[in-house]
Amino acid sequence: MDDPGRNVDPAVEATAADIAAMDVRGAATIADAAAGALATQADRSDAETPAAFRDQLREAAKTLYETRPTAVSLPNALRYVLRGMDGETVAELRASTIARAEEFQRDLAQAQSTLGAVGSNRLRDGDVVMTHCHSTDALACIEAALEDGTEIEAIVKETRPRKQGHITARQLREWGVPVTLIVDSAARRYLDRADHVLVGADSIAADGSVVNKVGTSGLAVTARERGVPVMVAAQTIKLHPDTMTGHTVEIEMRDEREVLADDERAEIAADDGRAEIAADDGDSTDDGLSVENPAFDVTPPRYVDAIVTERGQFPPESIVTLMRELFGETTGEPWER
Amino acid sequence: MDDPGRNVDPAVEATAADIAAMDVRGAATIADAAAGALATQADRSDAETPAAFRDQLREAAKTLYETRPTAVSLPNALRYVLRGMDGETVAELRASTIARAEEFQRDLAQAQSTLGAVGSNRLRDGDVVMTHCHSTDALACIEAALEDGTEIEAIVKETRPRKQGHITARQLREWGVPVTLIVDSAARRYLDRADHVLVGADSIAADGSVVNKVGTSGLAVTARERGVPVMVAAQTIKLHPDTMTGHTVEIEMRDEREVLADDERAEIAADDGRAEIAADDGDSTDDGLSVENPAFDVTPPRYVDAIVTERGQFPPESIVTLMRELFGETTGEPWER
Amino acid sequence: MDDPGRNVDPAVEATAADIAAMDVRGAATIADAAAGALATQADRSDAETPAAFRDQLREAAKTLYETRPTAVSLPNALRYVLRGMDGETVAELRASTIARAEEFQRDLAQAQSTLGAVGSNRLRDGDVVMTHCHSTDALACIEAALEDGTEIEAIVKETRPRKQGHITARQLREWGVPVTLIVDSAARRYLDRADHVLVGADSIAADGSVVNKVGTSGLAVTARERGVPVMVAAQTIKLHPDTMTGHTVEIEMRDEREVLADDERAEIAADDGRAEIAADDGDSTDDGLSVENPAFDVTPPRYVDAIVTERGQFPPESIVTLMRELFGETTGEPWER
Amino acid sequence: MDDPGRNVDPAVEATAADIAAMDVRGAATIADAAAGALATQADRSDAETPAAFRDQLREAAKTLYETRPTAVSLPNALRYVLRGMDGETVAELRASTIARAEEFQRDLAQAQSTLGAVGSNRLRDGDVVMTHCHSTDALACIEAALEDGTEIEAIVKETRPRKQGHITARQLREWGVPVTLIVDSAARRYLDRADHVLVGADSIAADGSVVNKVGTSGLAVTARERGVPVMVAAQTIKLHPDTMTGHTVEIEMRDEREVLADDERAEIAADDGRAEIAADDGDSTDDGLSVENPAFDVTPPRYVDAIVTERGQFPPESIVTLMRELFGETTGEPWER
Amino acid sequence: MDDPGRNVDPAVEATAADIAAMDVRGAATIADAAAGALATQADRSDAETPAAFRDQLREAAKTLYETRPTAVSLPNALRYVLRGMDGETVAELRASTIARAEEFQRDLAQAQSTLGAVGSNRLRDGDVVMTHCHSTDALACIEAALEDGTEIEAIVKETRPRKQGHITARQLREWGVPVTLIVDSAARRYLDRADHVLVGADSIAADGSVVNKVGTSGLAVTARERGVPVMVAAQTIKLHPDTMTGHTVEIEMRDEREVLADDERAEIAADDGRAEIAADDGDSTDDGLSVENPAFDVTPPRYVDAIVTERGQFPPESIVTLMRELFGETTGEPWER
Amino acid sequence: MDDPGRNVDPAVEATAADIAAMDVRGAATIADAAAGALATQADRSDAETPAAFRDQLREAAKTLYETRPTAVSLPNALRYVLRGMDGETVAELRASTIARAEEFQRDLAQAQSTLGAVGSNRLRDGDVVMTHCHSTDALACIEAALEDGTEIEAIVKETRPRKQGHITARQLREWGVPVTLIVDSAARRYLDRADHVLVGADSIAADGSVVNKVGTSGLAVTARERGVPVMVAAQTIKLHPDTMTGHTVEIEMRDEREVLADDERAEIAADDGRAEIAADDGDSTDDGLSVENPAFDVTPPRYVDAIVTERGQFPPESIVTLMRELFGETTGEPWER
Repeated sequence: MDDPGRNVDPAVEATAADIAAMDVRGAATIADAAAGALATQADRSDAETPAAFRDQLREAAKTLYETRPTAVSLPNALRYVLRGMDGETVAELRASTIARAEEFQRDLAQAQSTLGAVGSNRLRDGDVVMTHCHSTDALACIEAALEDGTEIEAIVKETRPRKQGHITARQLREWGVPVTLIVDSAARRYLDRADHVLVGADSIAADGSVVNKVGTSGLAVTARERGVPVMVAAQTIKLHPDTMTGHTVEIEMRDEREVLADDERAEIAADDGRAEIAADDGDSTDDGLSVENPAFDVTPPRYVDAIVTERGQFPPESIVTLMRELFGETTGEPWER
Repeated sequence: MDDPGRNVDPAVEATAADIAAMDVRGAATIADAAAGALATQADRSDAETPAAFRDQLREAAKTLYETRPTAVSLPNALRYVLRGMDGETVAELRASTIARAEEFQRDLAQAQSTLGAVGSNRLRDGDVVMTHCHSTDALACIEAALEDGTEIEAIVKETRPRKQGHITARQLREWGVPVTLIVDSAARRYLDRADHVLVGADSIAADGSVVNKVGTSGLAVTARERGVPVMVAAQTIKLHPDTMTGHTVEIEMRDEREVLADDERAEIAADDGRAEIAADDGDSTDDGLSVENPAFDVTPPRYVDAIVTERGQFPPESIVTLMRELFGETTGEPWER
Repeated sequence: MDDPGRNVDPAVEATAADIAAMDVRGAATIADAAAGALATQADRSDAETPAAFRDQLREAAKTLYETRPTAVSLPNALRYVLRGMDGETVAELRASTIARAEEFQRDLAQAQSTLGAVGSNRLRDGDVVMTHCHSTDALACIEAALEDGTEIEAIVKETRPRKQGHITARQLREWGVPVTLIVDSAARRYLDRADHVLVGADSIAADGSVVNKVGTSGLAVTARERGVPVMVAAQTIKLHPDTMTGHTVEIEMRDEREVLADDERAEIAADDGRAEIAADDGDSTDDGLSVENPAFDVTPPRYVDAIVTERGQFPPESIVTLMRELFGETTGEPWER
Repeated sequence: MDDPGRNVDPAVEATAADIAAMDVRGAATIADAAAGALATQADRSDAETPAAFRDQLREAAKTLYETRPTAVSLPNALRYVLRGMDGETVAELRASTIARAEEFQRDLAQAQSTLGAVGSNRLRDGDVVMTHCHSTDALACIEAALEDGTEIEAIVKETRPRKQGHITARQLREWGVPVTLIVDSAARRYLDRADHVLVGADSIAADGSVVNKVGTSGLAVTARERGVPVMVAAQTIKLHPDTMTGHTVEIEMRDEREVLADDERAEIAADDGRAEIAADDGDSTDDGLSVENPAFDVTPPRYVDAIVTERGQFPPESIVTLMRELFGETTGEPWER
Repeated sequence: MDDPGRNVDPAVEATAADIAAMDVRGAATIADAAAGALATQADRSDAETPAAFRDQLREAAKTLYETRPTAVSLPNALRYVLRGMDGETVAELRASTIARAEEFQRDLAQAQSTLGAVGSNRLRDGDVVMTHCHSTDALACIEAALEDGTEIEAIVKETRPRKQGHITARQLREWGVPVTLIVDSAARRYLDRADHVLVGADSIAADGSVVNKVGTSGLAVTARERGVPVMVAAQTIKLHPDTMTGHTVEIEMRDEREVLADDERAEIAADDGRAEIAADDGDSTDDGLSVENPAFDVTPPRYVDAIVTERGQFPPESIVTLMRELFGETTGEPWER
Repeated sequence: MDDPGRNVDPAVEATAADIAAMDVRGAATIADAAAGALATQADRSDAETPAAFRDQLREAAKTLYETRPTAVSLPNALRYVLRGMDGETVAELRASTIARAEEFQRDLAQAQSTLGAVGSNRLRDGDVVMTHCHSTDALACIEAALEDGTEIEAIVKETRPRKQGHITARQLREWGVPVTLIVDSAARRYLDRADHVLVGADSIAADGSVVNKVGTSGLAVTARERGVPVMVAAQTIKLHPDTMTGHTVEIEMRDEREVLADDERAEIAADDGRAEIAADDGDSTDDGLSVENPAFDVTPPRYVDAIVTERGQFPPESIVTLMRELFGETTGEPWER
C-alpha cells in the first residue's frame, strides 16, 4: 500500500476534519463520532481480503486518532471498536466491527444516566453536595437522586477563572435545588456543612490520579482534612489508556487573559520601572509579571473515596483493572503495525 | 457624675466620630488615633482629683471603644495606654498617661519595619514565596529581605472576590520582584515551587487560630500537605484580647455582589421556575440561590509554622503568652467600672 | 405464567419461610440453605423446556431473595448458583445447576478454615491481637495460628452494648489463649501492646469500606494513629454486591434498651420537668432523651491493611475486583427479567 | 524542733484525717479544705519568731500533703498559699498567709463559673456537643451557654464501665438540653453530627497532655480525623505541678469488677481447662483471663484545640506557662527544707 | 513411581545444584535458568504417557523449587511455565511447555527495558530523583529517560551497611547524570530538592506492601511528609505469590559484621564489666551488645504512589490483581499433587 | 574611648583566644569560660565611674562574643551575666556582676544532672529507648533513670557518617544497659520495639524547631508515624536567642570525606568519561559527583513531644517563653551600644 491514507473513506476524513476543527467536541461526542466513523469505514470498505479490510480500519483509526492525540475519549473509542473486529472473512469482519461500534455508541448513549444512577445511590436524603466547576457526569448523579425523590442541597464553587460554577448553579436551580454560591477560597469554611464533594474528571490515570479542573486537588485535600468524602463521576471514556504505560497527563495551559485582563495587567505593571514596554500579547513574561493558567490539576487517589462510572463505583486504586478490561493492556496502539 | 459623657474632651469626641465614620480606618491608624486621643484627654483634663482624672480617662476610652467594638487594634491601644496610667497626683497621672500613649505610638510607628526585619530573617536567597490577599505586614518581610539583598520570587494568588492579589502583585513589581499570578484554585499545583506561604492576619486568637482573608485556611492545609511552611506576619495590635476569654471572632459577611454581579445572578436564576421574582436587593435568598461572601476564615494553629510580630517570632500556640504580657489577662474591660 | 409463584417447589417455600422467620440465620447458614434450595428446585423441576426451567429457577431465587433482601450472603449465593446454570436441555440445566450449588456449598463449608489459614499466616509467634465484637471468621485466623503452634495473646474489647467480647474471650480461653479484657474506651491505651487489630465484617462494600460492629471504625482510626495494622477477616459471601452500583449499606438501628434499660432511663429522665410522662416503650424520644443504637459503622479502606478471605488476602481497595469476578458486574438482579 | 509534728494545730490534723479518709473528696473540696487549714494554722499559731511560724506552716502543709500525695489539687493549694506567706514579723506573716488562703478560696469558689463563661464563648447557637464521662467543669460551659440563651444539643457517651454519662445526661435533661445517648463505640459515627467534643480533665501535664477518663484519647484522635474540635474544661487546680519536672501521671487501675462481674467472669472462664479454680478475688489473672480497668488515659496536646480554665483559654502547648506562673517553677516542694 | 526423583533430567539437577550453590543468582537469572530447565526437561522427557510427562515436569519443578524456596522469582517462573503445559498428547505437552518457557524467557529478557520505558514516562525534564540502594530496575527507568533526552539529576543515598549507593552513583556517573551523594540520615533534608523517590523491590506482597532494602520504608514515610511521590520499579517476577495466602515475607538477617567490624565491637564493649569475654564469632549477644542487620524492611502501600512493572504501572493496592492474573490464585503449589 | 579594646583585661583576651582557637570547646565549657571571663573583668576593672565599668564589661562581652558568633551557648552566657549587672556604684556593679556570673556557672555545673533527673521521670521501668548520635544531655536522662533503679534498654542508631552511636553504645554498655546497634536505615523497623526516641540538640529555635544531628528530623517523622514519642534533652544554653528575631540556624557543612573516602570517590568516578581528573581536594564537584555532608537538620516542633531542660520539661511550642525569660526579648545585643 503506497499511500496509507488513500483507503480511508471520505466520510471518515470528514469526521476527522470536524474533530480537528473542534466542530465535534466534548468527550462523549468525539467518541461517538469516532466509533460511527469506523462503522462507516467498515460498511463502505471495498477491501477484498480480510488483511486489506483490517488495514483500512487501522488506517481509518489512525486518521481519526491523529486529529487530537491528547483527547482521551478518542483512542478509547477506537481501541474499543478495533478490539471487536473479528472474523475470518471480510463479511464477518464488517459485521463484527459495525456491531461493536453500535454497541459502543449504545453504551455511550446510556453511560451518563447509568453513571448517574450509580452515583445517586451514594447520596442520602438531605445531603449537601459541594461542587467544583461544571460536569454533566457529576450533575447526572444529582439529577438521578432528585428523580428518586432524594432532597439535595448544593454548595457551588464559582471556579475561577471561567466561573463554570455559574453553569452548574443554573442547572441546579432549574431542577429546584437550593444553591449556595461561594468563591473558591471559601471552600474549607463551607466543607463543615457539606456531606460530599462531587466533581467530574477530565481524565483518570492508571495510578488512580484524577485529572480535573484546577482546584480539584486542593479541594480534595481539604475535604479529607474536614472529614468529607470525595466522589468523582466519570464515564469510562475518561480512563486514560496512555497512563497504563506510565505516561503522565499533560496539563493544558490556557490563555492567561482568562486570569488577567489586559487592563488589569496594565494596572499591575504600570510602575514597574524595569519593564519598558508592557507586553500586550497576553502571554509574554518579559515584564517580570507572568500569569499561569493551568486548566487542570492532579488529585492523588488517596484523597478520593470513590470513582463512579457507568460500570459501577470503584476505589481509585483499582480503576486500572477496569482500564485493562475495557481497553486492553497492550502498550502498542492498535492502529500501529 | 450624672452625665458620664460630659467630661470627654471634644477632641476625643471628634476622633471617636472619625473612627465611627471610618474616616480613620486601618488597624494601625485607628490604634494610633485612639492612643493620641487618650493623650489629648490627659493633657486637657480639668480633673481636680486623681479619681476624677481616672474617671475621665476611662470615659474617653469607653467613648472611643464603642465606636467600633469589633476592631481589634482599638481596644488593644486603649488597654495598653490605660495600663500605663500611674501616679499619686493628677500631674503624675497626666504625665504617665501621655508618656505611655507616646510610647505606644512610637512602637506602633516602627512595628511594621521591625516585624519586616524579623520576618525577612526567615527568608533565604532565591526563595519563592506564595502570597494570599494583600497584607502590608507580609510585604514588609519581603521588602526587608530585598533590602538585605536577598533575591525573592513571588507566586501571587489573585484572591477572589476582590482580587487584592493584584495590589500585592503591583507592589512586588514596583520592587522588581518577579511575580507569577495565579487563580486561587491553582495554589496546590504551584506549592511545589514555593518555599514559603506568607500571609498577614486580620486578627489572632488566644487559642493560636489565625483569622485572615477567606482562603487562608485551605491554603495552609494544602501547604502542610505539600511540605511548605506557613508564616503569618502580624503586628501585636492584631492579637485579639477578647479571645483570651474564649470569645470566637465573628466573621464579617460582605456584600454578595462582590461574588455575583446582578447580571450574573439574573443569568443563573433565569430558568428557576420556582422563583417568581428574582431578588434584586443583592442579599435575598428567596429565589433559592444564596451567595455567601465571608471576609475571613480561621486557620488552626497546627497549620501555621510561625507568627512573626514586631516582638519576635512565635509558634502560634504560644502567642497567648504574648497577649497576656501586653494587654493583661483581666477579663473585665479597663474602661468599665 | 399467570402465577409466578406456583412453580416454586414447596421445599423452597419452606426454606424461604425458615429464612424469613430467622429460624435459619447467620450469613453462612442462610447462604448454604439458599444454594441447597436452588439445587432442590432444579432436582424436582417439572419444567419441560429450558425456558420454563430457567423461569422456575429464577422464581425460586426471587422467592428466596425476598425473604431478607438486606442479608448479603443470600443474594450472593443465588447469584453464584444462577451464574452456573448452563446447558441446552433441561437435563443439562438441571445437572449444571445442581453441580454449581454443590460447589458453592462445598466451598462455603471450607471457606472459614481456608480463610483462617490465610489469616494465620499474617500472625507471628508471640503476637498480641486486639479484637472487637465476636467474629468466627476472625477467630478462625487465631485458631489456625494456634494449630500451627504460633503463640498468640489477645486483648478483647468487651463491645457494648451486647458485650459479644465475652463470647470471644470465652472461646479464646477454651483454646488456652491468654486474654486481657478491657472496656471499649480503653482501646487506644492498649494498642501500644498490640501487634494487630483483627475484626470480622458484616459486609464489605465495593468502595472498600468495611461495615462491621459499631466501634470498628474508631478502633481502626486509632490503630493507624498508634501504628498497629488492621486485618479484617471475611468470607466472600460478605462482599456486598449492591454496593458495586453505589448503594450504601443501611445501618440497622437496634433496640435502644440494649443501651439503656428502662430503670436507667427513668433515673435520667426523672427530673426532666419538660417531660410529663417518661416514655416506657423503649424507643420514644418525646422526652428529649433519645438513645441511638446503631448495630454497625463504616470503616473507610484507608484504615484497613488487609481483608482476608478464603480466596486470599486483598487490600480493601481491590476487593471490588474479587466481587466482580465472583458475582458479576451486571447491575440488574439475575432473578429479575 | 524535736518533734516536727507537734506544732501542727489539731484542726489541721483533723482536716488531714478527713482528706486521708476521703471524707473530704473532690479536687475543689480538697483544695478548699487545705487552704482553710493553712489559714487556721496561721491564725492559731503560737510561734514567737518568724522562723518558727514558717516552720509551723511548712509542717502543716507537709502534714496535709502527705495524706494524698497524688491528689493534684492538694499540692496546688498548699503551694499557692505558701507562696503568699510574706512579712518581717509573725503578725505580718499571719496576716499575709490568711489573706492568701482566703484569696485562693475565693477564686476557687468562682473558678467553675468563670471557666464556664469562658468555655461558653466557644459555643454557638445550635451547636451539638459530644461529651465523655461526667465533668462539672465541662457542664459549667454548657450551663453558661444556656444562660446566655444559646441553644445546645448534646450527644452523651455512656462511658463504660461506670456509665457516668448517665449523670451527665440527667444534668443536661434537667436543663432541658436535648440528649442523645450512645455507647462509647458509636462515637465516630456520631461525630459527623457534632460541632464540639467537650470533656473535663483529671489533671493536665506540663507537656500539654490531658489526663482524663479512659476513652478521652481515642475520642480526641477520632474527632481530629472527623474535623471536630476538642475542648477541655479544667480549673487550674488540675494543672499537675509534678509534671513540670518530667513526672508522668500514674494511671489508677480500678477494681476489675467494674468491668466484669463475677458471674460474667465465671461464664467466660467456665471451659478453661487450664484454670482449676476460678479466681474470686476480683483481680487475679491466674486463670489466663485478666481484666484491666484503667481509670484514665493520656491525650497528647496535638489532639486538643483548647484548654478552658478560669484564667482564660489556652492551647495545650502553652499551659506550662500558666503552671509556672501560678505554682512556681521550683523543683523542690515548699514544705521541704 | 517409586522414586519421585529419578525421572528428573540430569541437566535439571545441575541447574538446581547451581541455584542451590548460588552460582546462579539474581532474581532474573534464577527465573531464566528455571524456565530453561523445565524446557530442557520437556525436551528430553522419555515419558510415554501424558500423565507421566506431567509427573516428570512437576518433579522437575519441585526439584528446582526446593533449592531456594524463599527466592520469589523461582516459583513464579515455575508456576508460569507449568500453567502453559497443555495438550492431549506427550508431543503437545512437550511443545506447549517449551513454547511457554521460551515465552517466559523472552518476556523476561525484555522486562527490564520495557519496565524502564514505562517508568521513564513518569519522569520529566529536569527532575531530581532520590535513590536508595542499587536496583537495576530502578536504574532502567532513568536510563530510558536519558535515552529520550530527558535531563535527570540524582540524589543518591549511600545505603549503609553495604553502601550499594556507590554502585548506583557509579552507574549514573557513567551515564553522565549529575550525582549528589548523601548519608542515609540526610534524606529528609534533601527531599526538599527531589521530585521523585525511585527504588526497586526485593519482592512485593499481595497486600501491596513493598519489601525492599532496609531504609526504604522510612524514606517513603518521610517522602510523603515532604510531598514527594514514591515510585517502585519491579519486574513482575518480584510479585510474591505466597503472600496471596497471607504469608508474610521473612526478612533475612545478615552478618552483623557488615554493621560493626570486630575492632569496633571491641572498642564499644571494652569497658563492659559484665562481659568477661567479648564475643568474637560475629553474632553473639552474650555481652549485652547485640547488632541487628536486617536486609529489608516493609513499606505499606499507602506510602507508595506507583509500582512500575513491564506490564505497566499500578497503584500498590491493585498489584494483587496482576499477581492473580499471572500466577493464578490457587493456594496449592502446582508441583504438589 | 579611642580604643574600644584597650580596656579589656588580658585574662579575658586569653579566654577569647582559647575559644577562638577551639582550645575551649563544647557548649557548656565555652559558656562557663565566658561567664568566668566576665567575672574576672569585673573583678579587675579599674573603671572609676559606673559608665566606664559598664563600657568595659560590654567590651569584654563583645570581645568574647566575636570569637565564635555562631556558638549558641556563648551569647547566652554573656547575655545572662550582663542582665545581672546592676547597681549605682562601681562597687555594686562589680559585686552584682561577679555574683551573677557565679550563679550562672553554678547552675551550669548542675544543669546536666538536673536535666537528667527531669528526663528520667519520663522513663518507666522496662522502657526501650532509641537514640541517635551521641548526646551527654540525653545520656544523663538514662543515667538518672538507672540510678533510680529503672531498667532501660537501648536501640542505638550508628549515626553515619561519624558513627557517634558507637560512643553512645560504649557509654551505655559501661552502665550495663543492653544495647542493640542498628544502621540508621533500620530505624523505622525497630521503632516498633521502642517506647521513646531520645535525642539531644545542637540548638533550639524560637519557633520550636530542634536543630540536631542530621537524621533527627527523619527519625522524628517516622517515630510519629509509628506512635513513639520523641523527647529532646537540651540544657537551656542551647536555646538560640537569634531565632527570636526570625534568624534561621545556619547548618554547618562538614568535610565530604567523612562521607566518601578518596578511594571510594575514585571508584565511583572512574568511568566518568566527562571528568578528566578526579577531584582530590575533597570538596570539588567538578566531576559531576558532589557529596553533601550537612552536620544537622531541623525538626519541626510538631514531631517533638517534649523538650527536657534543667528548668523542667516543655512542649517545643512554648520554649520561646523560656528563652525570653532567661535571655530577654531585646532584639539588640547587650554588648552593642
